[in-house]
This record gives sequence, structure tokens and C-alpha cells, in this order.
Amino acid sequence: MNLLLFAAHERTPQNTLILPVQDRRATHITQVLQLQLGDTLEVGQINAGIGQAKILAINSQHLILDLLSLNQAAPPALPVTLILALPRPRMLARSLEHMVTLGVKHLVLLHTARVQKSYWQSPELKEEKIAQHIQLGLEQAKDTVWPHITYAPLFKPFVEDVLPEIIQGKKALFAHPHSQQACPRGLQEACVLVIGPEGGLVPYEVDLLTQAGLEGVHLGPRILRVETAVTALLARLF
Amino acid sequence: MNLLLFAAHERTPQNTLILPVQDRRATHITQVLQLQLGDTLEVGQINAGIGQAKILAINSQHLILDLLSLNQAAPPALPVTLILALPRPRMLARSLEHMVTLGVKHLVLLHTARVQKSYWQSPELKEEKIAQHIQLGLEQAKDTVWPHITYAPLFKPFVEDVLPEIIQGKKALFAHPHSQQACPRGLQEACVLVIGPEGGLVPYEVDLLTQAGLEGVHLGPRILRVETAVTALLARLF
Repeated sequence: MNLLLFAAHERTPQNTLILPVQDRRATHITQVLQLQLGDTLEVGQINAGIGQAKILAINSQHLILDLLSLNQAAPPALPVTLILALPRPRMLARSLEHMVTLGVKHLVLLHTARVQKSYWQSPELKEEKIAQHIQLGLEQAKDTVWPHITYAPLFKPFVEDVLPEIIQGKKALFAHPHSQQACPRGLQEACVLVIGPEGGLVPYEVDLLTQAGLEGVHLGPRILRVETAVTALLARLF
Repeated sequence: MNLLLFAAHERTPQNTLILPVQDRRATHITQVLQLQLGDTLEVGQINAGIGQAKILAINSQHLILDLLSLNQAAPPALPVTLILALPRPRMLARSLEHMVTLGVKHLVLLHTARVQKSYWQSPELKEEKIAQHIQLGLEQAKDTVWPHITYAPLFKPFVEDVLPEIIQGKKALFAHPHSQQACPRGLQEACVLVIGPEGGLVPYEVDLLTQAGLEGVHLGPRILRVETAVTALLARLF
């Protein structure tokens, strides 16, 4: 936790933050960072500024922080809309943290032929689980800007009806091992990137994405796990 | 498992591979891939070629594969020596798989001030545990070339006495958030890359690496977890 992240509604009218001692953030402050009364730490308000807070009180029930200036901006976001075939639950959790840490703010989780239908019923997709991973990723990167996640459980309608609007005026790519073109480096423009599932996109899906105006790009002959591919593609593109 | 990887000593004089049915690779073939008698699959011999094998027999005790041609080469390795501050055990396991999948063949695990001494006693460092992660990484990438891992439990002697020889004639970098220089992209030359621990390198370590002739490079303002940083740095450099 490089930044203590809190929500606007947690801020009191006295401009303090009162955390129950069992709160994960409170135990991190007292047990991992071992901070004491009067110490300061970096804090950020979700979708707002970053600054310092000072420990005003620690008692058996609460840890109270005085919020000082919160006038620093969050680090720049990646200019990308990432469209990811829904990974299996454990992979989703880790991939989410990588993506959020790297600065992805627009994510679409997509159904494709090789996504198991059961993944859509996973408890990892519950709002509170997704929110946990987002919070951890933002805390890691010292970021406060909450990403938008949407769901596209039907491939064809998404690609034919929704995707054309999303890619309007942007570089539009899909990662696919057998593409002609190597993934570009150091893009200076906004980009839409589709990443397939373990096992890849099927030919019909590749055709549909190509018809929709996306270009296939590869990362070389090695087949990467989804969570490795997500980080590798983002690091190479931006 | 994109490639069934086996060791030279597992190959019989009849050019077959006899796997006990409990072997992880055998259960993958029968249960995940659901292959049958006569089906073929991709196989590779450690530190040798890649090719096809055909299922000759499946009985209650063994799965027998006929090794056909093994004349394809492994994918190219990354021209990098990666020197990584020993991560905490779970992070080490995942980072190893990322690195091996991406094609790292020379890895040094290094002690630094912010590496907890207890990490060196972790069961994750046992040879068989390390070998498991390497095997999974190679199978994922369809690679057969076993990487070399060495250990440097003393920072100063390593940096002063060993590192100068390793970096001879190569680009030599260390990743550090507050460096002046952004990490280069698409290197066409051999490279030595030092990656610090969670919490970073301490100033004394930065000084020693700089004196040894390495340049600090950063990946922007975001603080990445070690496993994200490893993949991101390798994907950007090569």
C-alpha cells in the first residue's frame, strides 16, 4: 500500500478520516508501516487529489487521520481502452491488478468462443471483489482515478454494434499470435486493444475483428499467459 | 501446457516416453486435452529440439508416447542477464514463470538492503520448487532451453567483483523510479538489467551500481509490483 485510498463519503466534516482498527488500511498503518501518533503518510481520495495525512489519534477502536492538503494530481492514465476476453477467475484477479497499476481506465470484459461460460458466474466478478482488486492496484500505483469496467457477454453484437463507435479516431488492435504485424512500440495516440483468451481467438472472431477495422498484432513466437500478455502489451505500446 | 517437456533421461532406447498415469503431464493429456490413442501432440526435450509425439498406448498404469521428429528449434531467447532482488516467496514463483515464459535464460537472484533475510530460507528457493516454475514457464512458451539461475546473497561483493565482468560489452541498466532516463525501447543489443526489491534500492546501492557502470532507468511515475515491473521492463526493452 503506497497510498492510503479513501472515498469521499469517508471524509468527515472536520476533514478527518476515522478508520476502525480492524480496517485493512488501519492495520497496514499500525502493523506494517508501524507509524505512530503524529506521523504522516500519503493519502488519496478516490477520483480526487493526493496529499498527506497526519495521525491524530490511535485508540482501541479507531485510527484518526487529519487530512492535510490533497492537491496533487494522480499520475497520467494510459490512453487505452482494453477489451479483454474474460479470463479464468484467478487470472482475472491478477490481471486486474496489473492493468489498474499500469493505468488502464477503460476496460471491457468480453465473451469469446474460448471463454468458459462458467467464468461469468464466478464470485470474482461480484462488484465488491472487483472493487478490492481495483483498490489494491490504485494503492500500488499511487493513483486515485477509479477505472470504468463494462461487460460484453455477447461477442458478435459487441463487435458489430458497439466496437465501431469505441474505435472511432483511435488506433485499433487485437493481439493474436499469428498476425503479420509485430505489436507497435511507444504509441503517441489513443488506442483500443483486444486481448483474446487462453487458447486464443477463433478464426471467425479474428475475421469479425478485422472486418470491424482492427489490425492483428503479435508479440513474437512465444505464447504468453493472459496476465503476462496484458502487461507486456501495455508496456510495449505505451 | 502448450508443449509437453521431458528430460533426455526419460526417453527410452525405443524412442518412446513412458509416463506414469499420475504424472502431471499424463493427466493433462488425458483429462484437459482429452487426447486418445493415435492422437499427436507437441513435445520438446529439455535443451534439445521440439516436435511431435503420438499416443501409442494408454493403460491403467502408463501413457506411452512415440517420439516422432524433434527437429524444430526453440524460440529465440532474450539477450538479457536479469539480476533481480530476491522477491518474497509467492512473488518469486510468479515472477519466475513470467521471466521464463518471456525467454530469460540468465537470472541472478540478489540480496539487497530491503530484501528480508528470511526470504533466503524460503522453501520456494528449493531446487525442485524452482524447477517446477521453470518447467511451467517453458511449457507455456513452447520453449526447451533451461535457464541458468545463480544466487548472490552478498550485495557489495557481487556488484564490485562479479558484475563488472557480467556487463562487459553489454548495455547495463538498473530500474529505479527516480532515475533521470526513461527505460529504452526495442534494444538491439545484449543487456544486463538489475531490478530492485519492493520498496526499492537504497541510495547506497544506487551509488554502487552507478559506480560499477550501470545506468538508472525508470518506467514513469507509477510504482509497480515486482512481477508487473519484470514483465513491463522486458517487454519494453526487447
